Amino acid sequence: MVVVMSPGAPPEHLAAVVARIEQAGAKAFVSRGLDRTIVGVIGEGSRVAELTLAGMPGVATVLRVSEPYKLVNRQACTERSVVWVGSAGREVPVGPGTFTLIAGPCAVESAAQTLGAARLAAGAGATLLRGGAYKPRTFPGVFQGLGKDALRILADVRDATGLYVVTEVIDPADVELVASYADMLQVGAANMQNYALLDSVGRQGKPVLLKRGLQASVDEWLMAAEYVAQRGNCEIVLCERGIRTFETATSATLDLASIPLVQRLSHLPVIVDPTHAAGRRDLIVPLARAAIAAGADGLLIDVHPDPENALVDGPQALAGAELRELASAVRQLPPVLGRRPA
Amino acid sequence: MVVVMSPGAPPEHLAAVVARIEQAGAKAFVSRGLDRTIVGVIGEGSRVAELTLAGMPGVATVLRVSEPYKLVNRQACTERSVVWVGSAGREVPVGPGTFTLIAGPCAVESAAQTLGAARLAAGAGATLLRGGAYKPRTFPGVFQGLGKDALRILADVRDATGLYVVTEVIDPADVELVASYADMLQVGAANMQNYALLDSVGRQGKPVLLKRGLQASVDEWLMAAEYVAQRGNCEIVLCERGIRTFETATSATLDLASIPLVQRLSHLPVIVDPTHAAGRRDLIVPLARAAIAAGADGLLIDVHPDPENALVDGPQALAGAELRELASAVRQLPPVLGRRPA
Amino acid sequence: MVVVMSPGAPPEHLAAVVARIEQAGAKAFVSRGLDRTIVGVIGEGSRVAELTLAGMPGVATVLRVSEPYKLVNRQACTERSVVWVGSAGREVPVGPGTFTLIAGPCAVESAAQTLGAARLAAGAGATLLRGGAYKPRTFPGVFQGLGKDALRILADVRDATGLYVVTEVIDPADVELVASYADMLQVGAANMQNYALLDSVGRQGKPVLLKRGLQASVDEWLMAAEYVAQRGNCEIVLCERGIRTFETATSATLDLASIPLVQRLSHLPVIVDPTHAAGRRDLIVPLARAAIAAGADGLLIDVHPDPENALVDGPQALAGAELRELASAVRQLPPVLGRRPA
Amino acid sequence: MVVVMSPGAPPEHLAAVVARIEQAGAKAFVSRGLDRTIVGVIGEGSRVAELTLAGMPGVATVLRVSEPYKLVNRQACTERSVVWVGSAGREVPVGPGTFTLIAGPCAVESAAQTLGAARLAAGAGATLLRGGAYKPRTFPGVFQGLGKDALRILADVRDATGLYVVTEVIDPADVELVASYADMLQVGAANMQNYALLDSVGRQGKPVLLKRGLQASVDEWLMAAEYVAQRGNCEIVLCERGIRTFETATSATLDLASIPLVQRLSHLPVIVDPTHAAGRRDLIVPLARAAIAAGADGLLIDVHPDPENALVDGPQALAGAELRELASAVRQLPPVLGRRPA
Repeated sequence: MVVVMSPGAPPEHLAAVVARIEQAGAKAFVSRGLDRTIVGVIGEGSRVAELTLAGMPGVATVLRVSEPYKLVNRQACTERSVVWVGSAGREVPVGPGTFTLIAGPCAVESAAQTLGAARLAAGAGATLLRGGAYKPRTFPGVFQGLGKDALRILADVRDATGLYVVTEVIDPADVELVASYADMLQVGAANMQNYALLDSVGRQGKPVLLKRGLQASVDEWLMAAEYVAQRGNCEIVLCERGIRTFETATSATLDLASIPLVQRLSHLPVIVDPTHAAGRRDLIVPLARAAIAAGADGLLIDVHPDPENALVDGPQALAGAELRELASAVRQLPPVLGRRPA
Repeated sequence: MVVVMSPGAPPEHLAAVVARIEQAGAKAFVSRGLDRTIVGVIGEGSRVAELTLAGMPGVATVLRVSEPYKLVNRQACTERSVVWVGSAGREVPVGPGTFTLIAGPCAVESAAQTLGAARLAAGAGATLLRGGAYKPRTFPGVFQGLGKDALRILADVRDATGLYVVTEVIDPADVELVASYADMLQVGAANMQNYALLDSVGRQGKPVLLKRGLQASVDEWLMAAEYVAQRGNCEIVLCERGIRTFETATSATLDLASIPLVQRLSHLPVIVDPTHAAGRRDLIVPLARAAIAAGADGLLIDVHPDPENALVDGPQALAGAELRELASAVRQLPPVLGRRPA
Repeated sequence: MVVVMSPGAPPEHLAAVVARIEQAGAKAFVSRGLDRTIVGVIGEGSRVAELTLAGMPGVATVLRVSEPYKLVNRQACTERSVVWVGSAGREVPVGPGTFTLIAGPCAVESAAQTLGAARLAAGAGATLLRGGAYKPRTFPGVFQGLGKDALRILADVRDATGLYVVTEVIDPADVELVASYADMLQVGAANMQNYALLDSVGRQGKPVLLKRGLQASVDEWLMAAEYVAQRGNCEIVLCERGIRTFETATSATLDLASIPLVQRLSHLPVIVDPTHAAGRRDLIVPLARAAIAAGADGLLIDVHPDPENALVDGPQALAGAELRELASAVRQLPPVLGRRPA
Repeated sequence: MVVVMSPGAPPEHLAAVVARIEQAGAKAFVSRGLDRTIVGVIGEGSRVAELTLAGMPGVATVLRVSEPYKLVNRQACTERSVVWVGSAGREVPVGPGTFTLIAGPCAVESAAQTLGAARLAAGAGATLLRGGAYKPRTFPGVFQGLGKDALRILADVRDATGLYVVTEVIDPADVELVASYADMLQVGAANMQNYALLDSVGRQGKPVLLKRGLQASVDEWLMAAEYVAQRGNCEIVLCERGIRTFETATSATLDLASIPLVQRLSHLPVIVDPTHAAGRRDLIVPLARAAIAAGADGLLIDVHPDPENALVDGPQALAGAELRELASAVRQLPPVLGRRPA
């Protein structure tokens, strides 16, 4: 950490800053310049000191020089991690060296629709099935998800197809229930800083799929993962799904630089959801190809047996020709980049 | 709602669109152009139809022409609403004609600190006391809020000062507890689309202070309010606290155009939190003045008796000279704009 | 400047960094930490060194600790500056202590329309007249501005009304011509980093109105002003007109925190253009009030005698009731904030 | 175009809107709804009418339903275009079916450095050489580009290596000079809406490389291209180089969805500059791979024989191992996607 003093800050302000640093158990190195004095802060206590130095008189700025996350930091574990999903002995890996396709319907609408989507997903190379049970929306009288019934359908479809189940949890009170049916719990973008939910998924044993918030920097996303890891659950897969920018031609702007960046900063696997970033079917396959080429460890894709009649997000679900194109990209590109199917 | 067909869409695609609109109970008006055909959709069923038309073959875009929120829409209630906070007979209004200052410490640290902050707040013209009980943060070993003890302190300070209590709730499971102590429940920016929490605060009886999410458009913010109102609670005060942009000189960019905009679109009161938008003490008073002049119904401000030793967000708490400047702005400006103190 | 070395950078990388700093004539102060070493750089040569240190092996980041602009820096001149516009002996000030209204039509369409708009402007308290001569737009067959004829009309209207003329220049080749008619040259937001144009307006003698680019940070805006000042022209008024964000309800998001911020960082006057930020008439007056309250040194406003028939940007020009409201705000608010009309 | 009337707009407002549409030579189709009336506008005159309808009384919004660009629109030319760069008989194509690598130093520093960079570029598969002659920067005493000398060096290196020259022009007054040396003229991101420059490059005969502005939507970028095309020059290659967002880990956020999007909306070729989006060397190769996979028609890459001593942007120039990785990606990936080297 570096403390930059204001131009003309009097010696007593500098002395107070140094005193507080030392009080927190860290060491202070002072460099006096022509118009600015800077103080290097080194040591364990620096994190605590950081929280209170910024407001002291004479302090212009406090600059962080190391990452605030530790458990999910790449330095904690120089090898990139693999997260294993599913039953012992038959787990599906998500991580370096492999490529994992997670696909399924945005929302579980019925047993038949979910089974149909799962078969399409499996046919395209998926080993994990996604499907939403909780779909809170504002329009009165509109489909809001099947809740517990959806969880049962997903479990049945897993039995029928062998695809493990990834599903979103929204209420901390539902975490135990969802974890009793699903193989991986998804935290959605809108909940990336919902600490009650992060706490709850961090205290159960199933792997977590943590989507990046629409407004979250890469650092904040890793801090959310750190929060989950601190509660005891390090089985976290990150999912880039686009950030909000001024461009309205797509639902969100997919930030593919975050893939190599996260892989340098953290040991956690990271996948990409091009479906919700694009928000329109015709851009999904090119973005999926780009995600694979950027080095993603997997993809999360909406598929639906009958997108025209989907109750949620039909315009962005793949089927037919586009799904065949996706399947071909998933077969063809990862091997060129040194990955085998998971 | 208007459906724009793709150039060259064949007649059967148009026919299918018209059929679906009529099936949903709405009427379709077709205008055939040189290279585009557009379909006006009129009627009750249009909202339901909107959700599925976008993905149909031959449809280029679906354009919404009326706002999707109804209960909080200004058209539902041409007069702007007043939300009353506190005990019967002695309520504090938030709304048109008055100006309400809500002030207090970012976090409740102790009874003495909270009482000190409350007295500063009251001295500056506040009639409502803010103070945080839950402060989840990632650094291990760092202060996370006093929880239930903070709620008790806030209630005691209310008894001692007469200031009603506004405090944030984070976990839906805590809503009942928090509502038993507080006079108004705050939903933070990070939770603006936390539907489990919105559901929970919508089903209890205390007024709600709903902060705008860092990534939320004005429409999405009003949709979050609509979600709360649909659960039975229409006592909602909106709070602009800045949106995330590329500018890093401030924590967030305060969007003051949202104040007159929300007042045209909705009947709900809207206040401004300049503290968390600025993220630095020296910009707060100018932004507070600007918020009053833009027509805000109130302000939410961090004050602390000893900002240098604050455990959370000290660098942005007001005290001393800046607090006196704020008090003077709150006394002087609202009357010029036709408002009296609340 | 502070150089942060990567964790584990070998001693020879550190030695090379120190050598390069000293070679540039600056001094290096090394603080060795547990996992990071940081190097404080002090001295005249640090600016030159900054440009090449970032790419050296072992360097993780280079952090700037002082502002890169010097001539326009508040430290260069502790009093805030006044820019004077117009003929000797009868200049209009823009700066601290006064409040200046600049108003007029977006585009000069005819002598009669410009004179009409100028009279409305003067009636509302304006002492400077804005009016566009060059309006490049993409639609073929659409009005593109009257060019030199507009400049002549503006000069005639100045003679008739006593209002000095502010007009935008777009092509460096036109700067001399425009400066021969106008009293102040405007550089538009889209040209804030058009260095050929900045060079040209910096080498002539009339004051410059420099709009903030839609994508420009406050630092970059001040750097553009510095570029003009380096060419010899320090008579610069900055103009905040909104930045581009994800919010589409307005044309741009007016960043009013930039007003107090610029006034702390620079000695240059700063005004606000709420017209082009709002992009819709009904939000302009509230934003104008907010700008005054935030401490702006003036306003730039579109007025038109017949907005419905305006050739450019009619929907955002003020007339009638809204213009009267603006005039009343401009009369009433600045005195409350310690300013007199300019 | 669709005009949406305000709820409760009286019949005379509707009549005036219809009258103005018909006066402009277009046809109006009125759909009366419960609380809204919408007017479909069809016909040639609709573009002119659009410019003035928005401000009429009773008009809530005007929604565009077709793209405002015509010459560069994909509908103007259903096949995607190829732009040919260089001398007759030996031109290098940029467009569908091929993949073009443009590489070279950010700035021309000397004949030796430029030749060295050109040889590295050619070795990596480049057929076009980039190199900057004009580098306006604010720091006094800092390298600003070699200007005309750089143009001569580039021409000499072209003779020595056979690589055609792409270089940026900044001042409209230099266009003729630059075009006499270069084979393709680059318009930089900061100048995307510099109409004097667009006019000038549109009136000369060499192909244009048009970078997307940091704040520009895809529509605005295509409108800038339309402006060039209207002046007679349709030989335009678009270049995505990232947009400005809140994420500060990279210089800009590369918007790869713009590649398939532009290819659907326009017939012009589109390439990607990952160097300036990333702003750091270690992310460039993954982003380059992603750009190829997204369907880009080419790449623009900074290479330098000695990045550590580069005068401009050294930290983002490729050399050594990273350049070999890039070369391998450029050899390997385009064929998988059905493209051959250009």
